[in-house]
Amino acid sequence: MATNQYQAIKYTTNNSDKVDDNLTVEEALQININEKPFSITMRTPNDDDSLIRGLLYSEDIYRGSDNLTIEYSKNEDNSITEANIIIDETQLKKGYSNSRNFLSASSCGICGKTELEDIDTSCTIDDDSKLKISVLHKMFDSMKNKQDTFQLSGGSHAAAAFSLNGDLLCVMEDIGRHNAVDKVIGHLINTNTLNQAKVITVSGRISYEIVSKAFAAKIPFLTAVSAPSSLAVDFAKELGITLLGFCRENKATCYAHTNRISVTN
Amino acid sequence: MATNQYQAIKYTTNNSDKVDDNLTVEEALQININEKPFSITMRTPNDDDSLIRGLLYSEDIYRGSDNLTIEYSKNEDNSITEANIIIDETQLKKGYSNSRNFLSASSCGICGKTELEDIDTSCTIDDDSKLKISVLHKMFDSMKNKQDTFQLSGGSHAAAAFSLNGDLLCVMEDIGRHNAVDKVIGHLINTNTLNQAKVITVSGRISYEIVSKAFAAKIPFLTAVSAPSSLAVDFAKELGITLLGFCRENKATCYAHTNRISVTN
Repeated sequence: MATNQYQAIKYTTNNSDKVDDNLTVEEALQININEKPFSITMRTPNDDDSLIRGLLYSEDIYRGSDNLTIEYSKNEDNSITEANIIIDETQLKKGYSNSRNFLSASSCGICGKTELEDIDTSCTIDDDSKLKISVLHKMFDSMKNKQDTFQLSGGSHAAAAFSLNGDLLCVMEDIGRHNAVDKVIGHLINTNTLNQAKVITVSGRISYEIVSKAFAAKIPFLTAVSAPSSLAVDFAKELGITLLGFCRENKATCYAHTNRISVTN
Repeated sequence: MATNQYQAIKYTTNNSDKVDDNLTVEEALQININEKPFSITMRTPNDDDSLIRGLLYSEDIYRGSDNLTIEYSKNEDNSITEANIIIDETQLKKGYSNSRNFLSASSCGICGKTELEDIDTSCTIDDDSKLKISVLHKMFDSMKNKQDTFQLSGGSHAAAAFSLNGDLLCVMEDIGRHNAVDKVIGHLINTNTLNQAKVITVSGRISYEIVSKAFAAKIPFLTAVSAPSSLAVDFAKELGITLLGFCRENKATCYAHTNRISVTN
């Protein structure tokens, strides 16, 4: 379940009512690699296969194309609390040796990295795709229509991937913004559609870590309903990502690599 | 500077305009304790004294009342990149031994903890204060009026602390939600006003880590413009915190310890 029902009291100016409210579930998932503790992530359950595959890929821990063997453990109420991933040690990449045992919060995906310099900026995104602004707005409409958890709870992030002409490849939701992006990337890999993905849309803001994930997946357009941070824009410029914020009410502001934007309808 | 100006192109349905946009600054701060690397935090500069004091307090690393000696290092463009805090080793608390070298993102404050159980739940908040809903709404109006960075950038979180009758004690902004709360707690400690603070307001959502910070500061009311997560409510119930979400448009929904709410005007 992505939401749980809670009893609450809703206060208006002159009234109070008992209500049953749906809240987005936030639960800990202990991730082990070959039985060794690797991370504890606060996440919304469901789609753990996608979350794990995306996390391993975007953090440069494992990028093979094999099916992953993941052993899940559950607690007494049947919710998944632990995942053990079996990976041939020789296939573990740089991100694994840079990492350590860490707890990453629902709102954070870069915990455990020792240095910002862990992001490999040597190979920037070179892509001559053009995105039409009119198509971009339709993408945000598509994502919004699929935010089932948000419609129930009013408290979850969403991310989605699209082809250049606006075909929706995947929508994912999570209590954590970076988890939603990892789930999208993981789903694309698991369905062998990563090469079709040209645009990521996110429901909130863009920090530098979201830019680093889009870069890891080599997706040239990163777009958001809300504002980017200064560092997100600095990184997008450096890494070759076209970054748009404030994509709402038929507007959009482009902060990096505007050459890929087309205003033709 | 809490914001930086960036050149951008703003697209509307049939038009595009070059604009200069203010974005909230996200910068890394390496925090060392007694010259030993402790954490790298992505944060909005300014108020680093408050951020550090609050982080040390809410993560149970140092809770003494002495003035802290903090040595700052700057880079060539004069921005602070490193802080070394001098603390008598015998005064470092449990949170220090539980912690490790870690990178905490702008959207995450609990990275580096090894276990959720690190939160000490042995002493719940026992406080018989009553909060009037009408006073609560005025608190959110006060906070909003002081969100200078958000008014410029549209992309920063805010947190504030109030006395029970609505006196504003402190407002802080940051690219990261948990940093804004740490800055508030740190400022209250540095100005010796923590004992007056009964209510924390936050501009966004409430995850479990925000609840743990309010608990560390023994503040009985935690209130937010947006939704709490399931785990935030579970923890608030357990820790004795009155938790309200969706505090906007003269409404508010209380999910835990409703006995402290008064509807009398």
